[in-house]
Amino acid sequence: MFKNKFSIGAVLLVMGLVVVLCLPSCAERQKVVMDNNNVVKFRTPKYIFFFIGDGMSLPQIRLAEAVLATEGFEEAFLRESGVRVERDKLFMSGFPASGLATNHANNRFITGSAAAGTALATGNKTTINTISMNDDRSLAQTTMAEMAKAGGKKVGIISSVSLDHATPATFYAHTEDRNNYEIIGEQLLGSGVDYFAGGFVRHDTYKNNSYEDYLRMLGDSGYLFVDNREQFEALTNGSGKVFATISGMDSHNGDDMALPYNIDLDIQNSKDQTITLAEFTRKGIELLDNEKGFFMMVEGGKIDWVCHANDVVSNVYETVSFDNAIGVALEFYEQHPKETLIVVTGDHETGGLSIGFAGTGYGTYFEKLLKQNISFKLYQDMVRNWAAEGKVTFDDALASLEESFGLGDTTVGLKLTDYDISRLKNAFNLSMKLEKFSVLGEERAVLYGSYDPFTVTATRILANKAGVGWTSFSHTALPLVVLAIGEGHELFNGYYDNTDIAKKIMLAGGYSGEEFFVMPPVDSTFVE
Amino acid sequence: MFKNKFSIGAVLLVMGLVVVLCLPSCAERQKVVMDNNNVVKFRTPKYIFFFIGDGMSLPQIRLAEAVLATEGFEEAFLRESGVRVERDKLFMSGFPASGLATNHANNRFITGSAAAGTALATGNKTTINTISMNDDRSLAQTTMAEMAKAGGKKVGIISSVSLDHATPATFYAHTEDRNNYEIIGEQLLGSGVDYFAGGFVRHDTYKNNSYEDYLRMLGDSGYLFVDNREQFEALTNGSGKVFATISGMDSHNGDDMALPYNIDLDIQNSKDQTITLAEFTRKGIELLDNEKGFFMMVEGGKIDWVCHANDVVSNVYETVSFDNAIGVALEFYEQHPKETLIVVTGDHETGGLSIGFAGTGYGTYFEKLLKQNISFKLYQDMVRNWAAEGKVTFDDALASLEESFGLGDTTVGLKLTDYDISRLKNAFNLSMKLEKFSVLGEERAVLYGSYDPFTVTATRILANKAGVGWTSFSHTALPLVVLAIGEGHELFNGYYDNTDIAKKIMLAGGYSGEEFFVMPPVDSTFVE
Repeated sequence: MFKNKFSIGAVLLVMGLVVVLCLPSCAERQKVVMDNNNVVKFRTPKYIFFFIGDGMSLPQIRLAEAVLATEGFEEAFLRESGVRVERDKLFMSGFPASGLATNHANNRFITGSAAAGTALATGNKTTINTISMNDDRSLAQTTMAEMAKAGGKKVGIISSVSLDHATPATFYAHTEDRNNYEIIGEQLLGSGVDYFAGGFVRHDTYKNNSYEDYLRMLGDSGYLFVDNREQFEALTNGSGKVFATISGMDSHNGDDMALPYNIDLDIQNSKDQTITLAEFTRKGIELLDNEKGFFMMVEGGKIDWVCHANDVVSNVYETVSFDNAIGVALEFYEQHPKETLIVVTGDHETGGLSIGFAGTGYGTYFEKLLKQNISFKLYQDMVRNWAAEGKVTFDDALASLEESFGLGDTTVGLKLTDYDISRLKNAFNLSMKLEKFSVLGEERAVLYGSYDPFTVTATRILANKAGVGWTSFSHTALPLVVLAIGEGHELFNGYYDNTDIAKKIMLAGGYSGEEFFVMPPVDSTFVE
Repeated sequence: MFKNKFSIGAVLLVMGLVVVLCLPSCAERQKVVMDNNNVVKFRTPKYIFFFIGDGMSLPQIRLAEAVLATEGFEEAFLRESGVRVERDKLFMSGFPASGLATNHANNRFITGSAAAGTALATGNKTTINTISMNDDRSLAQTTMAEMAKAGGKKVGIISSVSLDHATPATFYAHTEDRNNYEIIGEQLLGSGVDYFAGGFVRHDTYKNNSYEDYLRMLGDSGYLFVDNREQFEALTNGSGKVFATISGMDSHNGDDMALPYNIDLDIQNSKDQTITLAEFTRKGIELLDNEKGFFMMVEGGKIDWVCHANDVVSNVYETVSFDNAIGVALEFYEQHPKETLIVVTGDHETGGLSIGFAGTGYGTYFEKLLKQNISFKLYQDMVRNWAAEGKVTFDDALASLEESFGLGDTTVGLKLTDYDISRLKNAFNLSMKLEKFSVLGEERAVLYGSYDPFTVTATRILANKAGVGWTSFSHTALPLVVLAIGEGHELFNGYYDNTDIAKKIMLAGGYSGEEFFVMPPVDSTFVE
């Protein structure tokens, strides 16, 4: 009797194991991959979203959440039309997989966006300023977007800054220097990318072509160009290849052909005219959806810019706006959970941001950030006008600070101390060129970087009063945070290198291609 | 024929599922837990190591790795006897699971070690300075160490600072304030913890008992007390309950009953006399191993202390030493991979450390850190003696800086600029009390915190020359990094709260107990 039971049990066990072992290969729907001691099973996701917050790592994420959870900020963030919902955590923070990634360049420990973008787009380390080529810039490196395209997927490249900026460029272009905007612009035309959206291209730097030339060439290359909300909303899945941006890109738009800062939406563009990163993402899903799936890269490019300038409030707006776009992808994931993978990371941290400051010790006062209503950029432009006009007094400037940043408003705890006033006065005199730099060059670099002294002193004082500190106007080497949800998300757990992020996405998506290739000769039709 | 095949297939499938579903409960060796979308399977680990780097988060980890990979540092780190091996990544960085965790206290966004330790030990949020009690300090909270003990495991508590310091105390004590050292010391005696090791207790603060009293009470409570290498090495698995520390704890040892800073090993204690965190950990494994398994908490307590003081080189030494102890646990894991879980995290970041500084932009120069050969603490003690004696000139002080930090040594790129000299001179005059604070109180807080002005100016200048910045002398709210390896490690992926770290460990270990309980009355035998 006992023996019989045992036999039946053994037979069942063997059958069970056979069935279990057979299931993945029989169905051809599951992969089993050994990855840093983890066994990961997944179906190849049809849809891959790769979100890159330029300048974003752990401090930016946590600060945005801390401010989102602060009373009074709901309304401030509701000014963005789009997917904004009440929340005190970011969408990305709820993802089940989390990783950390180092990001040094081949020739510098603190990386830049070109080398970092190349690592994220191709899985290869390279040198500073290089766009998806190898170290010595002799060979091009195949990007995941190119691999996805070669595999029959549709591809979208979206950014809040110009689409030839380092990070987006690394996904479709190959050139020795990120500043070769005209070459990148040409490569964009021939890239085959199905959907470009966000900022425009840096035609203001071109030597051989005008804005009108570039529009014509976009048309010649098969792109439908749209630059207003009405045309944008009319785009459909049958629209073919699309280049979508906002209006005002015909001349230099004052901000390097980027979308406006989110904090400036009420000032710089009417809400109706501006199209947000979330909206560009939502439209991308509509346009790119097809039987073979798509790959979409979405960059929050201005997180970096505001961190360079140590503008903490604008940073929160940019990070939340970037997360709003992630929210759109998350909605799509919820409709297609077995076919979608979303990966979120940054390229590097910018500014050495910390929630904590020597002058405030263990205290934080995020409510003090509520009064700022303008980006450092628009404010700096104004201060530079003051200097040109020569009519604004220091008292005028202090009144302006209260209006734009709340600084000096004692009802919200923003009294300016003698120490603050002395620093602002020094900075004002420098900004107005009322005096030459009396401080040493080294001190100037530490106090102001390359920014307008009065503006950056104001944003830093406000940050410090809220209990937030900055150490740099450049990037730092803080590792990246990687967050993922969807098929294959487990691949992204652990501590690895930024090149591995690309390799993991390629592995998950089944993307492949030659690792390196010789660049084709430059298309002479571009240079007229 | 087709129908037959289908039937057999269906039968096999059902049988397979039955077997698969049955296996865990039949064998009682696997658990399946849904955790934030992840399905995690594991056997309950018999051995759990919980490593807490006080003041350690992502910047401290990455900086230690960057310096480890810098030529010339191998020898510097070889001064620690123990497990040190050649490496350019930390042991913890190779762990397959990684998570991020928020860590605010119930009444402050930037937490402290008591509230953070309570979260990590009990899974409950509490208020600042509270040791494993609830918010209003009316009820005690059961710790994972107490649960493990109740479940028949042996328990070890190890720290490089005193064992009644906030972090270790939260694992076995329950009191309203972390500064109640005498109460914590009493609770230590009755805790039942099998192995205390590292620093001593803060008997220098006791009102009712002397050092000798406490040694006697340790004996009365069944603890074998050892405080030298010979006795320590002679300890064996049969030694019973042990309290192991180093010599020199009889009077105030000048550093709050902690182990010496690792950078000072050649100065403060001979290498032979000092016992490192790694050695205490290795001995703990030997003493605690038993059929039912053990729980061991190991704190790298001085990472926090050196970060408070903005001493970047000492920070690297402390972080590497902490990781050396993790290396010991990793060796044990490799021998018992199916029975062991190792979890590493911090309680909070300290100092707002960044690899990147405004004055050095994108550059890093870790080789400039090689010349420092003393902790801020010993140097500060020396400067305070200078002030008492009143004989040391600023030129003498500069010569001393070169000897102790390399500052001024142009052969290693540490030329002092006029800007450096002016800051050092101001700080020196303040340290020597040659002048009163001419700077405003607010500026003083930003420049020096509560530290000796000359010492902290020196450590900050050295950090900045290496391309490293600090924003604070306090903690920051940067989320924690959680790294894990072993049975159940997948539980630790994702972005969650510090209370979840404790809950995950309890889940993995099968630890359970009443969440809250009423404290027993104070044992009157302690207060004589």
